[in-house]
Amino acid sequence: MEVITANSNPRIKELNKLNKDAKLRKDRDVFVVEGIRMFRELPLQNVQEVYLSESALKEYRDEFKSMGVLDGRNTWILSDGVFAGVSQTKTPQGCMAVVKCMHYQLDSVLGRNDRETFLVLDTLQDPGNMGTIFRSAEAAGVTAVLIGKGSCDPYNPKVVRSTMGAIFRVPFVMCDDLPGTVEELRRSGVVVYGAHLDGDDLYDIGFPDRVAFLIGNEGNGLTDEVACRADRLLRIPMEGKVESLNAAISATLLSYEVMRQRKRDRQN
Amino acid sequence: MEVITANSNPRIKELNKLNKDAKLRKDRDVFVVEGIRMFRELPLQNVQEVYLSESALKEYRDEFKSMGVLDGRNTWILSDGVFAGVSQTKTPQGCMAVVKCMHYQLDSVLGRNDRETFLVLDTLQDPGNMGTIFRSAEAAGVTAVLIGKGSCDPYNPKVVRSTMGAIFRVPFVMCDDLPGTVEELRRSGVVVYGAHLDGDDLYDIGFPDRVAFLIGNEGNGLTDEVACRADRLLRIPMEGKVESLNAAISATLLSYEVMRQRKRDRQN
Repeated sequence: MEVITANSNPRIKELNKLNKDAKLRKDRDVFVVEGIRMFRELPLQNVQEVYLSESALKEYRDEFKSMGVLDGRNTWILSDGVFAGVSQTKTPQGCMAVVKCMHYQLDSVLGRNDRETFLVLDTLQDPGNMGTIFRSAEAAGVTAVLIGKGSCDPYNPKVVRSTMGAIFRVPFVMCDDLPGTVEELRRSGVVVYGAHLDGDDLYDIGFPDRVAFLIGNEGNGLTDEVACRADRLLRIPMEGKVESLNAAISATLLSYEVMRQRKRDRQN
Repeated sequence: MEVITANSNPRIKELNKLNKDAKLRKDRDVFVVEGIRMFRELPLQNVQEVYLSESALKEYRDEFKSMGVLDGRNTWILSDGVFAGVSQTKTPQGCMAVVKCMHYQLDSVLGRNDRETFLVLDTLQDPGNMGTIFRSAEAAGVTAVLIGKGSCDPYNPKVVRSTMGAIFRVPFVMCDDLPGTVEELRRSGVVVYGAHLDGDDLYDIGFPDRVAFLIGNEGNGLTDEVACRADRLLRIPMEGKVESLNAAISATLLSYEVMRQRKRDRQN
């Protein structure tokens, strides 16, 4: 295979754009995945292009072959220098792929199980937080993440990296009309909880089988039109002078408390 | 007051260095605090220098005066451009202070209460994680954070910012010999828990009154010499294919479960 040695190569330019430009990702319906761990999680049928550094090719050749990556089609080798230029990390691992976006619909995730937990992200801005929410959500058995307009792009490279692969396993739905989506959850019998200082203490609540939690923006909390649609209000107890918790931390504490209660119920 | 309009001003150069250089912070025994929220949390007796942008001076003049900041001593005004250059944030709020470091000793935080929770950070690297741990620790009523050698500097500007002020309220001890510190915790009767896949399920454990949790490095977990000193092993339950949780998430789930059990015990 030929080795790409110039940053000016059109493929390299396009990769750089895909890493930076949410609109281009949307238009092409693809996103970029980087790193050997994420590589091992890739749904191969969705992979459109693979880029490997010369060093990574040496180190992982057998593994890539057994994954079916090195069959010659749509795989390009980059000099280490060119790879470092296009990499989003400080210590590049030398593998990158262009992958087709996932497209989940609310219908396909709602009402499929007796017990469901939804995380509803209302203008969540920080890519690291969103990625961590995916990772925790999978661990806590969350059914799906619902992402409202004005949130950061789940295909942002930093989100993808922070999910540690969970983005391939946790269904997520892009919601153009988040208030409408919350109404739909409620109509189907899901109890929707919003965070509020006047709410019930999280640890005094016995959660129903089907729940959704509204998670707001890092600085400004929930938007009014989403907050007003909560069925019930809850409060994560906080000591000291803390005014709020990190959004990913809140989402995790809520999901895990539901998980804990369900485990306890199964044991009793 | 004179306005600093040049990036080449020696004070501006020194501020830049303090933001970047952990060794200089240590030598001068100070760190840099930025942002209006953090400003409001400042222990004024520890403030050595204050830097305000011209815009911030206009916006917050009354507040700064009532805080005692604008008494003329050790306060400098920067043009907005110069402030933006030295700021660590994309949208600078125009206030920065050089503050004396805190110096807590283990003796002053250990054995002071019937119920204690310690978080022991073993080579924790990510500034955002460390800051979030401080913020959650305060909310969960953690007694103190013990920081081992090889962890990131708690006075790194990104840590300070992510604590949202908790760095001024949660005691933390710098531990040159973390294994020795863990031994000291145990000798004083604190039960030390380490995370391990073979450990007991977090939600099956009834925690004793005095506990410590070992929190490891983001990529590599605990170092052997710290891990081997745990009294007991525990496991945060995880569904799906998740191999581990984010370090700040783990620390929070552990601290909050202890908090939950103590609240429940008080209620019964």
